[in-house]
Amino acid sequence: MPAPRRRLAAVLGLCLALPAAADEGMWMAEQLPELTPQLRAAGYEADPAVLADLTAAPLAAVVKAGGGTGAFVSGQGLLLTNHHVAYGVIQYNSKPDRNLLEQGFAAADRAGELRGSPDFRVLVTESFDRVTDRVLAAAAGKKGLAYFDAVDAASKAIVAECEAVPGRRCSVANMDYGAEFYRIGQLELRDVRLVYAPPGAIGKYGDEIDNFMWPRHSGDFTLLRAYVGADGQPADYAAGNRPYAPPAHLTISRDGPRDGDFAMLAGYPGITYRHRLASEFAERIDWGLAASSDALDALIAIIEREGTRDADVAVRYASQLASFKNNSKRFRGELAGLLRSDAKRKRAEAEQAMLAWLHHDGRGEGRCAKGRRCLDSGETLARIAAIETLLQDASATRERDLLLNLVLTQTQLLRAAVTLQRLALERGKPDAQREAGYQRRDENLIEAQLRQVQRRYDAATEQALLLELLRRYRALPPAQHLAELDAVFGSDEATARTALARLYGATRLGDESFRLSQLQAEPAAVRANDDALLALAARLQPTLLRLEQQRKQREGELLRLRPAYMAALKSWYREQQRPLFPDANQTLRVSYGRVTGFSPRDGVIYSPVTTVAGIVEKNTGEEPFNAPALLLAAIAKGDFGDTADAALGTQTVDFLTNLDTTGGNSGSPVLNARGELIGLNFDSNWESVSASWWFDPRYKRAVHVDLRYLRWLMDKVYPAHWLLAEMGVPAAR
Amino acid sequence: MPAPRRRLAAVLGLCLALPAAADEGMWMAEQLPELTPQLRAAGYEADPAVLADLTAAPLAAVVKAGGGTGAFVSGQGLLLTNHHVAYGVIQYNSKPDRNLLEQGFAAADRAGELRGSPDFRVLVTESFDRVTDRVLAAAAGKKGLAYFDAVDAASKAIVAECEAVPGRRCSVANMDYGAEFYRIGQLELRDVRLVYAPPGAIGKYGDEIDNFMWPRHSGDFTLLRAYVGADGQPADYAAGNRPYAPPAHLTISRDGPRDGDFAMLAGYPGITYRHRLASEFAERIDWGLAASSDALDALIAIIEREGTRDADVAVRYASQLASFKNNSKRFRGELAGLLRSDAKRKRAEAEQAMLAWLHHDGRGEGRCAKGRRCLDSGETLARIAAIETLLQDASATRERDLLLNLVLTQTQLLRAAVTLQRLALERGKPDAQREAGYQRRDENLIEAQLRQVQRRYDAATEQALLLELLRRYRALPPAQHLAELDAVFGSDEATARTALARLYGATRLGDESFRLSQLQAEPAAVRANDDALLALAARLQPTLLRLEQQRKQREGELLRLRPAYMAALKSWYREQQRPLFPDANQTLRVSYGRVTGFSPRDGVIYSPVTTVAGIVEKNTGEEPFNAPALLLAAIAKGDFGDTADAALGTQTVDFLTNLDTTGGNSGSPVLNARGELIGLNFDSNWESVSASWWFDPRYKRAVHVDLRYLRWLMDKVYPAHWLLAEMGVPAAR
Repeated sequence: MPAPRRRLAAVLGLCLALPAAADEGMWMAEQLPELTPQLRAAGYEADPAVLADLTAAPLAAVVKAGGGTGAFVSGQGLLLTNHHVAYGVIQYNSKPDRNLLEQGFAAADRAGELRGSPDFRVLVTESFDRVTDRVLAAAAGKKGLAYFDAVDAASKAIVAECEAVPGRRCSVANMDYGAEFYRIGQLELRDVRLVYAPPGAIGKYGDEIDNFMWPRHSGDFTLLRAYVGADGQPADYAAGNRPYAPPAHLTISRDGPRDGDFAMLAGYPGITYRHRLASEFAERIDWGLAASSDALDALIAIIEREGTRDADVAVRYASQLASFKNNSKRFRGELAGLLRSDAKRKRAEAEQAMLAWLHHDGRGEGRCAKGRRCLDSGETLARIAAIETLLQDASATRERDLLLNLVLTQTQLLRAAVTLQRLALERGKPDAQREAGYQRRDENLIEAQLRQVQRRYDAATEQALLLELLRRYRALPPAQHLAELDAVFGSDEATARTALARLYGATRLGDESFRLSQLQAEPAAVRANDDALLALAARLQPTLLRLEQQRKQREGELLRLRPAYMAALKSWYREQQRPLFPDANQTLRVSYGRVTGFSPRDGVIYSPVTTVAGIVEKNTGEEPFNAPALLLAAIAKGDFGDTADAALGTQTVDFLTNLDTTGGNSGSPVLNARGELIGLNFDSNWESVSASWWFDPRYKRAVHVDLRYLRWLMDKVYPAHWLLAEMGVPAAR
Repeated sequence: MPAPRRRLAAVLGLCLALPAAADEGMWMAEQLPELTPQLRAAGYEADPAVLADLTAAPLAAVVKAGGGTGAFVSGQGLLLTNHHVAYGVIQYNSKPDRNLLEQGFAAADRAGELRGSPDFRVLVTESFDRVTDRVLAAAAGKKGLAYFDAVDAASKAIVAECEAVPGRRCSVANMDYGAEFYRIGQLELRDVRLVYAPPGAIGKYGDEIDNFMWPRHSGDFTLLRAYVGADGQPADYAAGNRPYAPPAHLTISRDGPRDGDFAMLAGYPGITYRHRLASEFAERIDWGLAASSDALDALIAIIEREGTRDADVAVRYASQLASFKNNSKRFRGELAGLLRSDAKRKRAEAEQAMLAWLHHDGRGEGRCAKGRRCLDSGETLARIAAIETLLQDASATRERDLLLNLVLTQTQLLRAAVTLQRLALERGKPDAQREAGYQRRDENLIEAQLRQVQRRYDAATEQALLLELLRRYRALPPAQHLAELDAVFGSDEATARTALARLYGATRLGDESFRLSQLQAEPAAVRANDDALLALAARLQPTLLRLEQQRKQREGELLRLRPAYMAALKSWYREQQRPLFPDANQTLRVSYGRVTGFSPRDGVIYSPVTTVAGIVEKNTGEEPFNAPALLLAAIAKGDFGDTADAALGTQTVDFLTNLDTTGGNSGSPVLNARGELIGLNFDSNWESVSASWWFDPRYKRAVHVDLRYLRWLMDKVYPAHWLLAEMGVPAAR
């Protein structure tokens, strides 16, 4: 920082409020060559330029897998990801008498690999191109909904052109909240099979108790294999399919992580909010997190109660329950972390400093985005004020919107009804004019979701969940109420209960063939169907469309206005010679840092590497600390061979780095200074779950499976030597 | 170990079972000169010979204080001990409108010091002499009860002679379970005043939640002052008394502890069981610990329930409740620790190795105690077998004995009744023939206890406690029942309840003047008194005497037989050139080691020093994490001055050493390599509470207040500059 600036910041008392640049960053691949000095200083030994090449190793080996990330580890489509990312695939293959979630699975050979769940997808990025000019040209001069629709239409057109190639899945990614747009072309692999999964007591050892906790002792990994048709193109499952040959795969290191070692991670982090406005930080901290965890806790209690009543319900809702628990705990940890980091105050001070700088210098965007007119500081400040007004509008119904979102996304039959009615509406339009998510290209995914309703649904449980959400809805002030919803569910518990009983008693949506038939039925026939839930969805549709229009109007305006805020932020960072990464948006990002422990609180230090001794220490014999007897015996035997850590003299399990991650990074490969695979990301520590909003270098750590633990398990405990050989790390014998 | 021995041990697979000599040891002062090489190697800089001198600093400054240890820190009788050791003194001065337990206390000057509770004593050791020959000569040729009585009579005679000097309190300490006897002469100071106590939220910050836990942030200290009469002799409280001039006092170091520093501690550890038989380890682990914590938990629940009903009960039982909780938690931790250290197996293996060595060498005691015939190995083994038989006999009624002990020690009125009847019985005898604890010399203490009944008693609560103990008693098999008890309390809940209501409705023992009058009343009148509880105590007395005789018979035999076991152990240690310390027995002991953290479990390391940052981190505003606003403000201000740790750049609070301690070491001064005071012992870590039976160097740590924290509090937060000046560490201003 130049001296005058430093003085200004000092006068404003803001020096400490500047975010620490060290180790923070989810970089786009194209930014990495610019970061060569930083990467070198951190200890990276290979050529940073190679990291910008999405068609070569290592980044070409990194793919989207289910809701997380995966990495190819052989030339024959073998894919490494987390046990919890592949959970649905394992669950799909589990039956009461052959519970693979519990027992684990090791295919004896390729023929023994098991068909994956129909909705599990692997997406291999093939292209990544800037399309900002085309998208924004379409929106020029527009506002609000028109701006939104213009961006939407341009994006759809780009996607449609891109998807003309068979088997390719395309999307337009919005960087920096509408400042830049990128077209991403991905191969969509639909036949993804289960190859190897450890028993659940290894894959999720410690489960909810250890979730987000360090020290950790989970073997949270699973091996899948992607298949393609005989023609080499993506295909549905078929016996004759053959393994997919990825453009690149990772090499497993024979060394393991040591304290202080360089580490790097690539993956598809879902979403971060680091560059959101200070007022958004305040709302998240003052309201959003507590409200969300509170609502989820109520749903968790209901699912657990229903699961106790009926073991079949427990199986059907296992995945959703795990997700609720994970999220609720994360929300609470996020709140505690943001409070501990004093993020609200710090973000507000940082924003004030940026605004003061804008005022002081009379600067606007400085070097603004290509092809756009630069804003001056007055225009920038006016746009930021307009953003604040929009955010306040949205807050007026935040409680209602939270509940409605849970109603529409966390039910099975009701969600199916709403989806089918919306699809019926959209099917009446030309494909390009259909709502995103309901285009022809989306129908396969919708069908897959409708198919798996059967495995994840129980009528009584769904009604109990809705009854709770409606109870909370009724407690809201009248201004947040929706007349159409009130008309159906009334203003008291008894009426809601009766209405739900009637609706679920007179729907056939629990019947798979009926449900799927509505995908193909004439739209008018779907709308007129007298099935109780379909009729309800038809009745509520105008209300939902109205809310959607309001949301789009706001989102359009935010899409138009936020780039001014981001441009100001970028200019301010540039002034300080600091690079700025776009907030995570489910696109491929790279983070680099090092293997390192931390101090969670005064007097306590966490080591960066755990060992099998911790498995034994934690073991109670009761779930979730019920390590399999085979594992305990193998630990007692101490036959670790070349997978043992030489310095520690024992088998390691998990390790910590300070890599910058968030949800979606589950399954991300962790590489060493030579770009070799040393770990598999699977969690964050409790102290860092607030990192999606605020990166605190004291506490932000990522939790990884040490690949040596995977190798030891596959060598000595639940052997699968053919897979070790395929991955290039054959068993020593 | 010579090579053949090493081979033998290796063959027996016992090398690892040998207790580690490093850092274990509660040494008698007279042993320390022999340990010069070890002390030097550990880093002690002063002359070890001085440590054997009980009349000079540092050991002459270390005294028994209440139930723990204290140390003089000025020439004017200023005594440093723990807040929890002085708890009764602070409680005695607390009233609802002036709760010193809550607010703390700082005398403005010497005249402002507050009178201590009547039963609080400070004992200054003046002499320590071996009297083994005299005691054992009296017991020669005797067995069982006769042996017990002979040792008892000899001890009493020695005590009586010793106490001919006014103000002196004497005792005979039994070392190594009857192998050696020492006469201890102590000055008994009865006027001990409250000088300075921090608020409870500092003195017991974290309270039961943090109890036994690390990291710790308590300022568990209190300053008292001992007074004597105008003639310089011990005296009851009187306005004209003057400060006691101790034979020595400690110097406070201006430096603080650093990781790895030498540390040493002196105090009065209560009792350890390290040299108990393997079968005693097994019983403790398999039965005793769980049974004790279970019974205490039941009593805790009752006191808490009664305290909720009536706030006055909560105050009256605060001290007893704290003690129950402390003990229950410690029993559970002890069990977990013994299991983790595999102590039962290791002790059994070590004992087997010793026995095998005895058999193999045909050795007995080797160099046996002076003045006694050496036993050969056959005699030694026969005596050990006899010990085992006695222990089995005792186990037959262990459940009943546990409950009866609680009935007789954890009640106020019933205990008073039993005590008064027993005293009445004993008062009829010549003093020398009275039962220990009921001699003329004990009457002051009994009176003090009877006086404080008033502050610690509630009729309904005592009945509820007894009802629970009787409920448990009724569930025992008939063989453990006592006919006399059954006759009073019946065989069902209703009868017991009615009996208790009748007894407590018809006793005047809750009346202090009546209670005290029975101390002086004619013994026959006490026995004939128709007060319901006095009558009950008279009725139960023959039974209690019978049980006492049985116990003495067994104890006499154990006293006769155990020295053979200890002699064998000593010979075996000597063979390995390892020193052996006697198990702790409330006599002055010294431990040395170093400042050091530890790893409580895989992946976690505890730092040896905590800082004020941890107080802020833990603070919730709710008890027990409700740091006073003054303290939080002072921490926020950061004005630590010369009490801050230079390396850490902040104020430290507590620290850890690997010193060998047990209950009774509370309040022990911790000294540095130059013998200067750096800390005040107040707790053990949870992982080491099993150390009274088994010393595991991985986990055994002691927890101390850093004297710099005391100095900072007394300088900047709750100032008492006159006391800092008196202690030779005046405030910097």
